[in-house]
Amino acid sequence: MRIEGTAAPAATDRPKDPGSPLVAALDIGGTKIAGALVDSSGGFLVRAKRPTPPGGDAATVMAAVEQVIGELKSDARWSRAAAVGIGSAGPVDASVGTVSPVNVPGWRDFPLVRHVAAAVGGLPVALVGDGIAIAAAEHWQGAARGYDNALCMVVSTGVGGGLVLGGALYPGPTGNAGHIGHISVDFDGDPCPCGARGCVERIASGPNILRRAVDNGWRPLDGAEPTAAAVAASARAGDPVALASFDRAAQALAAGIAATATLVEIHIVVIGGGVAQAGDILFAPLRRHLANYATLSFVSGLRVVPAVMGTDAGLAGAAATAAQVLDLTGFSLR
Amino acid sequence: MRIEGTAAPAATDRPKDPGSPLVAALDIGGTKIAGALVDSSGGFLVRAKRPTPPGGDAATVMAAVEQVIGELKSDARWSRAAAVGIGSAGPVDASVGTVSPVNVPGWRDFPLVRHVAAAVGGLPVALVGDGIAIAAAEHWQGAARGYDNALCMVVSTGVGGGLVLGGALYPGPTGNAGHIGHISVDFDGDPCPCGARGCVERIASGPNILRRAVDNGWRPLDGAEPTAAAVAASARAGDPVALASFDRAAQALAAGIAATATLVEIHIVVIGGGVAQAGDILFAPLRRHLANYATLSFVSGLRVVPAVMGTDAGLAGAAATAAQVLDLTGFSLR
Repeated sequence: MRIEGTAAPAATDRPKDPGSPLVAALDIGGTKIAGALVDSSGGFLVRAKRPTPPGGDAATVMAAVEQVIGELKSDARWSRAAAVGIGSAGPVDASVGTVSPVNVPGWRDFPLVRHVAAAVGGLPVALVGDGIAIAAAEHWQGAARGYDNALCMVVSTGVGGGLVLGGALYPGPTGNAGHIGHISVDFDGDPCPCGARGCVERIASGPNILRRAVDNGWRPLDGAEPTAAAVAASARAGDPVALASFDRAAQALAAGIAATATLVEIHIVVIGGGVAQAGDILFAPLRRHLANYATLSFVSGLRVVPAVMGTDAGLAGAAATAAQVLDLTGFSLR
Repeated sequence: MRIEGTAAPAATDRPKDPGSPLVAALDIGGTKIAGALVDSSGGFLVRAKRPTPPGGDAATVMAAVEQVIGELKSDARWSRAAAVGIGSAGPVDASVGTVSPVNVPGWRDFPLVRHVAAAVGGLPVALVGDGIAIAAAEHWQGAARGYDNALCMVVSTGVGGGLVLGGALYPGPTGNAGHIGHISVDFDGDPCPCGARGCVERIASGPNILRRAVDNGWRPLDGAEPTAAAVAASARAGDPVALASFDRAAQALAAGIAATATLVEIHIVVIGGGVAQAGDILFAPLRRHLANYATLSFVSGLRVVPAVMGTDAGLAGAAATAAQVLDLTGFSLR
């Protein structure tokens, strides 16, 4: 929970209107469950957080969610909460309100929306996958602001994404649209844990950047831990094996991004997540490869930029999603 | 032009309401320019057609369009025309009303919408790419009817497509969305004329099915012309090289279709065009490969079916597009 201090609150923690409606946002991942009361300008009024119970059964994990909600409800401003927005690790099925997060084995087809609705006394609840929540955040307040057609991605342990089409978030019927990590760009390629071959994630995720570097003889500088970040550090120092591993990841991302733009006409791609922290080590080869794959006239002007929303993106995006899906008055998303 | 005969008109040529508004539809391709007055139930009241002047300059090609329009205007029912819908070979740019069809070299950034609007006395004009027009037709009256999320494709000399998302045609900002033929499923693969590598069209189009078969030693049965249809005939007779060429095309289509479903959550894929006439020679391996690429829970129920609209699909779809884009009253598209 945010500590009320004597210093002036940060800009994002300052409500724009003390009487305006709020959204209770939940960001549910494999390691933490975060919550916040968010106002219509994106300010965070109250925060709560619990670790996701490792290996917990369905009820144990839900109890942690209920603790987060309980902490939000204990604040007087809860009375202004008009809706709940949930961004959850996927897969989700927003059409029936269930989640089956890969990293939360206790939840399979778990009716999260029903349980949350009960915990909040019947407020309307909107659910989307976490990639879509992050897209909502970047579109509301981040690097995709002002763009009507955008792809926002997270390149990290996995590769996820979400779409903005025609000026609005496009969650799709089950809240899973924008799943760019599992489109195949190498249809004869290596098997992916999803069951397909040559998926973008199988080539471009942090663990795969690391694996490819190690397989080709790379070792960390100065005895550091072998991570994708360490591969990036070696690449910055000019290590050709490290550079080649990032180049291959960038090529796969470029092919996947070009496919997305060719299918739905996006004008900007926003990329966040740990692998994007590599900066130009990733973005320079990505832009170069993109010119080779995004060749048709209507996609050739595509921009690729780093994400600007930080660790709060999931919560801000869950709030923005609820505001859009539930059509809350007072929330200006443009 | 349709000849008024003494026999009862065909079902699709029977207007449902003699006073209802009509759409003037134009289907513009590299070999022919077709037009029709279409009523709100999809009935064709008047038809006109001209060959596309081969190698004609911009004015010569436009003159053929104006002749088609003139023939429609000479019918008394033209007075009921409320709008014009154009489906054109691409690329198009609906945002500025121009077309640059690959097979009509005389038209590059040609302001077709402005010229057509002038020819029809200022009626509103809607423009989309021909793949999108065909998707509109299949959604209005064909195999995608009743589906809110669909991909409709043409697999022929090229590979094109169009999307229905959330119950409505999704043309995208420039009218080019759904361009599945030019997404890469083999990012290290053969160069495509578009400039990229391993595009779906580069592997799955009719000419590429033929080329691959010939390269591997196939020859037509009984001295027939070497065409993709002849490869299909050999495949039906059990020729392993012919079967393998269709199987490879099916694999590329499956990877591209799975990518599309994973990105935007579609529930049905409708495939028409000359290559689709091969029937189970294409559809059986396609469905088998699709199970290997469309692996995530939210795409695993995807259906693949043949198109049912015939050669009139482009005109019907142009009319449906105009009705949706211009929000014409009286046209029921669902």
